Amino acid sequence: MTRRHDRAFVRTFFTSPTAVEGDNSAKMLNRAAELRGMQAPDVWVPDNEDATAPGMREEGVANIIDVVAKHGADVPAEIHPRVVWHRDNASTRASGFEQIRRIADSPAAPYIDGFVIPEVGGLDDWKKADELMTLAESEAGLPTGTFAMSVIVESATAELALADLRETLHQPSNALERLFLLVDGEVDYTKDQRAITPTGALPEWPELRHNTARGASAANLIAVDGPYDDIRDMEGYRERMVDNQARGQLGIWALTPSQVVAANKEPLPPATGEWLLELDGDSVSLTPDESGDVYAYEGDRLSLTTTDDGYQLQVGGETHQLDATALRETITERTAYVPSLSDIVDSMEEFEAAKAAGQGAISMERAATLELDGVTVEISKDRMWDEATYQAATTPIDLFQDVHDARPDQHDALADRYGAEVVDRATQVG
Amino acid sequence: MTRRHDRAFVRTFFTSPTAVEGDNSAKMLNRAAELRGMQAPDVWVPDNEDATAPGMREEGVANIIDVVAKHGADVPAEIHPRVVWHRDNASTRASGFEQIRRIADSPAAPYIDGFVIPEVGGLDDWKKADELMTLAESEAGLPTGTFAMSVIVESATAELALADLRETLHQPSNALERLFLLVDGEVDYTKDQRAITPTGALPEWPELRHNTARGASAANLIAVDGPYDDIRDMEGYRERMVDNQARGQLGIWALTPSQVVAANKEPLPPATGEWLLELDGDSVSLTPDESGDVYAYEGDRLSLTTTDDGYQLQVGGETHQLDATALRETITERTAYVPSLSDIVDSMEEFEAAKAAGQGAISMERAATLELDGVTVEISKDRMWDEATYQAATTPIDLFQDVHDARPDQHDALADRYGAEVVDRATQVG
Amino acid sequence: MTRRHDRAFVRTFFTSPTAVEGDNSAKMLNRAAELRGMQAPDVWVPDNEDATAPGMREEGVANIIDVVAKHGADVPAEIHPRVVWHRDNASTRASGFEQIRRIADSPAAPYIDGFVIPEVGGLDDWKKADELMTLAESEAGLPTGTFAMSVIVESATAELALADLRETLHQPSNALERLFLLVDGEVDYTKDQRAITPTGALPEWPELRHNTARGASAANLIAVDGPYDDIRDMEGYRERMVDNQARGQLGIWALTPSQVVAANKEPLPPATGEWLLELDGDSVSLTPDESGDVYAYEGDRLSLTTTDDGYQLQVGGETHQLDATALRETITERTAYVPSLSDIVDSMEEFEAAKAAGQGAISMERAATLELDGVTVEISKDRMWDEATYQAATTPIDLFQDVHDARPDQHDALADRYGAEVVDRATQVG
Repeated sequence: MTRRHDRAFVRTFFTSPTAVEGDNSAKMLNRAAELRGMQAPDVWVPDNEDATAPGMREEGVANIIDVVAKHGADVPAEIHPRVVWHRDNASTRASGFEQIRRIADSPAAPYIDGFVIPEVGGLDDWKKADELMTLAESEAGLPTGTFAMSVIVESATAELALADLRETLHQPSNALERLFLLVDGEVDYTKDQRAITPTGALPEWPELRHNTARGASAANLIAVDGPYDDIRDMEGYRERMVDNQARGQLGIWALTPSQVVAANKEPLPPATGEWLLELDGDSVSLTPDESGDVYAYEGDRLSLTTTDDGYQLQVGGETHQLDATALRETITERTAYVPSLSDIVDSMEEFEAAKAAGQGAISMERAATLELDGVTVEISKDRMWDEATYQAATTPIDLFQDVHDARPDQHDALADRYGAEVVDRATQVG
Repeated sequence: MTRRHDRAFVRTFFTSPTAVEGDNSAKMLNRAAELRGMQAPDVWVPDNEDATAPGMREEGVANIIDVVAKHGADVPAEIHPRVVWHRDNASTRASGFEQIRRIADSPAAPYIDGFVIPEVGGLDDWKKADELMTLAESEAGLPTGTFAMSVIVESATAELALADLRETLHQPSNALERLFLLVDGEVDYTKDQRAITPTGALPEWPELRHNTARGASAANLIAVDGPYDDIRDMEGYRERMVDNQARGQLGIWALTPSQVVAANKEPLPPATGEWLLELDGDSVSLTPDESGDVYAYEGDRLSLTTTDDGYQLQVGGETHQLDATALRETITERTAYVPSLSDIVDSMEEFEAAKAAGQGAISMERAATLELDGVTVEISKDRMWDEATYQAATTPIDLFQDVHDARPDQHDALADRYGAEVVDRATQVG
Repeated sequence: MTRRHDRAFVRTFFTSPTAVEGDNSAKMLNRAAELRGMQAPDVWVPDNEDATAPGMREEGVANIIDVVAKHGADVPAEIHPRVVWHRDNASTRASGFEQIRRIADSPAAPYIDGFVIPEVGGLDDWKKADELMTLAESEAGLPTGTFAMSVIVESATAELALADLRETLHQPSNALERLFLLVDGEVDYTKDQRAITPTGALPEWPELRHNTARGASAANLIAVDGPYDDIRDMEGYRERMVDNQARGQLGIWALTPSQVVAANKEPLPPATGEWLLELDGDSVSLTPDESGDVYAYEGDRLSLTTTDDGYQLQVGGETHQLDATALRETITERTAYVPSLSDIVDSMEEFEAAKAAGQGAISMERAATLELDGVTVEISKDRMWDEATYQAATTPIDLFQDVHDARPDQHDALADRYGAEVVDRATQVG
């Protein structure tokens, strides 16, 4: 199955209210339309549903048309307004249809990449939204499939539909090939599942996120996680992204420009590598010294002293007497390296060269000097790379290249972060 | 889809042996039939399958008929006997049919709300049980669908069927709209999956519980977790319920009257709010002083001292030098509040008033004085509430109201726990 | 549904390159063909796909034919070569067909138990592989279904297919009843899901492993986990197997003879029982003294001292003042027992005797003397056994008996590990 959309990856899904109280009801739309570089999302969602008060949504449609007609040509993001919709409410669906019609047949239409449909149910409900988009396209004299369709998965029924997407997308009786993003909506999903937590915090819903990523993978779509409400907790937002990425969900909703910046950067490899030390089940980042050659642990969770015949290591509630070799092995097992973009490019180039020379697998070594409780330990880790390792390592590079191609407005930020030479090599490799 | 049954929530699924050795083989049934208030379950299951020895099951049916005919009118629980059944054994299914027929055509029938079918396979097997219930209803002169049908999900095949329920329930060729509870059976499921744990403890099966809750949500049914064997470990039972609730599985099996009491209470909000402090990955409850205004931590996992220029905080293996503002922020991040029923009603009323006044979102603040290692820290957390937050918060209130409507025998216990005024407001809100 | 294959369990799936550089390109195949006893896997996979360089695969087929024709009769493992295949590449599928044809119509055929098909997609793709095996069987004059078919689940599409296996396997238009193993392939699955982890480590993919085990259970097939790359980390490999077993995935890929030995032994019960103590969320094994009667904890994570009126216990960041009874209860809650093969056989025999005497449930007690920080604590745990407990406990015994029946070359190793008398009783029980 081939991917039908321009973007192969979407890091950020940024929603803006379409109309707010006050003199200039389009204020938030105008502000968002001016974002550039790392401040600008991959997908911008003028949100005529939950982010906008019900009484303001008529005006919201007018604002979308005005602002997008005026600024759309310059906005670096794709533009996908969210309209109202509900699987259990025909009147809401009728309103959603009207919103799509008005926008599709307006001066904003050339800059509209698609629409976001919330609160979908089973695939028959997705087909209804698809058909109404087809009618709106027809009325506006646009070819079927002009607009992409993204859905918010926020019901058990929609989650179940994810398993059947691949077979349904290419049926001749619908135009569901227009599907683009599968976005989780954990707040309403929690309501639909009637789940309760003591503090009212949202459950983690790992199975929902797995099923969304899997559905996206099977149908060549893109999975995006839902909003992270605690907008001041940037560390929590980053942890959520790391967890999502390990599931194949590389995009996330952003509620604020700060979240946009964080979510644009997080899935890209770091600019400098990092050594991690596992202590009591946590991965603790080691601090490089000024030279960048020695990595130190500065906390209290590990104690290491030299003894007459070796070393005494206290960690995880246990005391170990070790000689130099055993110490090195014990510490090596507890460390891991987070490669930088430059490291990944190096490894890929090294493997490509080996493959060209007829080698199917090579060993990649990574060494470091650690300083633990004042004691110096030299460690070295190696890993076999074969074709499969190489292929799996290319995902961050594919993402990097997709960003580089689609977002010239971020070239300066990428060069600032990685250096022009690394950016250049990263666009060539693979 | 509309819900067809009286109860929208079931907290407790309590099984009793139908016949035991000794003079009075109906002893356990009689004892269970007399339970009232928090001791009485939402669903009572005279268990003519695993809880009763095979040789006693004929007598078990007679006991069910006698005890339910005599006490059924007064039992506050719904009554759903479990009969024998097996997807792979026609003779067992024939016996289950006979058990249903005898009970359906007996003086107990008016008090029987439905039957529980264990060991089901795929949906074709569910249809067989449904059809035999339809025949038994016909023979007894009862309309099709008189009896609800609940199933025990204890095979991989039944788990897979959960994804297809929504489409199958309304087919004209069956009466599966009678479906009521989806109950997990982890002991037999573990056998069916051929899973092994070193100690013989049951695996957690989070995916099974997710899929059961999701299937229930998609088809408007009710998900119930299986038995918790270690009947003396009430703390473990409560932790299991907290985990279940975060998945949308608000009911659980109960093997003893003590488990019934615990499971009736646990999904309802607490009577008093509670502050939690996160320490080394655990959430530790803080102890209110006599006034209820100051919450103290009394363990050894945190040390906090004042220094010349601020505070020294030791926690999680690390030492932090903090000024007053940074201390407050660090502690605020590590705390969470568990709202009481009264708190939830307050917040909902506040949001309803704001909405009536035209506001779409408001900030709710919660402040507290903490005493940590003898040092006083004032914290304050706020959270945005919008329509979606409000909707998600209503699940415990919907549950409370369902309990209040369906279980007048628990009114005294609710008033004792929460006070009459809070109970009254909780029945009005939403 | 009945199981169609000789083995009901497969512990080990051992891949060997079919052709390597050097004088004797069949070196690795020859070495693997000579393995016996615990060094020999349950399923041996001459791997003509990823383990063999693309340019060597023609020679690889010739090597498989030579080595299997010569040694096949004596190899204790089942022999299932892996051929090339890809759901998205017809040319790769054509090559896979050629490889199957050559082997099926060769002197090696009588010793070939089946083929392993990697990179499958949806069930239509599985049917293509099945049909080409049917054609190859026909050309070689062999009955349809002679060769088993095992697949590597390494795409979202293949994962989704697992839910439909049960209904598809018995369709008259295919021969998919030949299906045998469902093997996860996490490296390529990670690529297919476009997942990223900071260190490049593979995600855990618990949902994939659950779905594979569930699909196997529903269709009477066997689930096998993918390769564990870090071949020096035997402890990590063992932890992975314990996690897999709790999901019903009792087999695992092995890349080296050391991994084969570990994976053959791990799912079998231990030779001696073990007491575990829970400390800070970890299960720590207690050390028996020379007599085997007293189990001691020797770490620093627990401190226990006698006081004037009882005991002071420090554990998990909290200090408890306890009398003798409370101490015993607290410690009992924190302990668990891992039964040996002999213990399991004892319990099963005890339950069988009780059942023969008309008892449906009995209590099994297990007592021990612990020494914690120099203080002696006597504990005792009991557990109710009923028919369901008994049934669930039989999985390790069923596995043991399957190994004993199918692998006479491992009889000596089993007798060495457990003693001849325990082995004998374990083959009789159940």
